[in-house]
Amino acid sequence: MQDLLLIGIGSGNPDHLTRQGAEAIRCADLILIPRKGAGKSDLAGLRETIIANVTEQPPRIAYFDIPQRRADDGYLRGVDAWHDAIAARWQAAIDTCPEARVVALLVWGDPSLYDSSLRIAARLDPRPRTRVIPGITALQALTAAHAIPANELGAPFVVTTGRQLRDNGWPQGTDTAMVMLDGECSFHSLDATQYDIWWGAYVGMDQELLLSGPLDKVAGQIQTTREQARAEHGWIMDIYLLRRRR
Amino acid sequence: MQDLLLIGIGSGNPDHLTRQGAEAIRCADLILIPRKGAGKSDLAGLRETIIANVTEQPPRIAYFDIPQRRADDGYLRGVDAWHDAIAARWQAAIDTCPEARVVALLVWGDPSLYDSSLRIAARLDPRPRTRVIPGITALQALTAAHAIPANELGAPFVVTTGRQLRDNGWPQGTDTAMVMLDGECSFHSLDATQYDIWWGAYVGMDQELLLSGPLDKVAGQIQTTREQARAEHGWIMDIYLLRRRR
Repeated sequence: MQDLLLIGIGSGNPDHLTRQGAEAIRCADLILIPRKGAGKSDLAGLRETIIANVTEQPPRIAYFDIPQRRADDGYLRGVDAWHDAIAARWQAAIDTCPEARVVALLVWGDPSLYDSSLRIAARLDPRPRTRVIPGITALQALTAAHAIPANELGAPFVVTTGRQLRDNGWPQGTDTAMVMLDGECSFHSLDATQYDIWWGAYVGMDQELLLSGPLDKVAGQIQTTREQARAEHGWIMDIYLLRRRR
Repeated sequence: MQDLLLIGIGSGNPDHLTRQGAEAIRCADLILIPRKGAGKSDLAGLRETIIANVTEQPPRIAYFDIPQRRADDGYLRGVDAWHDAIAARWQAAIDTCPEARVVALLVWGDPSLYDSSLRIAARLDPRPRTRVIPGITALQALTAAHAIPANELGAPFVVTTGRQLRDNGWPQGTDTAMVMLDGECSFHSLDATQYDIWWGAYVGMDQELLLSGPLDKVAGQIQTTREQARAEHGWIMDIYLLRRRR
């Protein structure tokens, strides 16, 4: 392998794919695709759909299983070992097609944003030349769906995780936080009377759900909607923007 | 007009356009295009190129001039008056084609990120139904070009402006800052021995320039490169990511 392409495919809508992403897919000799995780069957076909949309003849595909993450060893060390294990699966999949010069992965969202692909790629030996093709993030799909700006005029904003919000409270020096990777409705840890929220689940997808309003008015509704949707679909991905009220 | 489409077109590379963006362009009865500002002739043709790439017959186009921003009235009030003035230009351009039901603007980057289109659209009377199509941001073009993640593992990051960095120093509670809208190399206000920088100008475009390294080693080179490029092209757009060293 000479080149590894990490192609951002956007956040659920196959039409988030860019022309650059489509061209990169057509350049690939081999595409690695993770096998569907339990319950995420809605997502399973997305990568195949995207490839079929932009190629006359689908390129060679190698599937790999994503190993389980061990939760018993501390968060960061657990993630580190997990990335080692995924890199080994990538390598095994690449080795099924030694003649492939350009290998590609289709990355949910954008490879720069709370994604492990760059860190996993750095574990391959020999280390391939890695090229990143940016994709639409869930942050952008959320703000687009609500037709709101991310930032207030000339003001900063923070992108953070549910865990950070729970552990460290409201981020200092900003009135806007975009919260990702939150399985626990961590907005409950805030004083709800002080914030407005714009929430979305499955943003960009057909089953998109959107709610917004004063946090003290809609927090309960968001939690209920989230639980029902998760039960119905078997999985959920959601994201939200919080803005402190003036 | 029934619908106003704000279509994110990415940050300089016409192939940043998404399939959704292309479809939105084809739906438009009228597209509003700002006339080139002085010295930005490299950008002038980009919107026309993008439209030509995705339409057989170009849709009707109405050009408008972007008014001058007054700097004598305080930053925020100046911006406010400027948005009023731009909204009036949009309205005049829309009025040239009263039969258009779907009007579109092609927005550099993404309409949610340090962009005024949503705020200007809210000034139109009657207020149109506004739909946002997300686009690749300069942040993503920067991290893709350097093949780096935006965030450290599970950690938050701040998106901010050069003005904020100068006025308020390093943002609290994070080791990563993405800095936009900085005409003054505001990284000089920091203790350079503590940070690494990944800088890019014209990211995504043919004339892309990239520099990175310890801030105390490359700050001068970035400033010189920036000045030379600005003199050569007559304009510059740059962006950078700063990470505090451990």
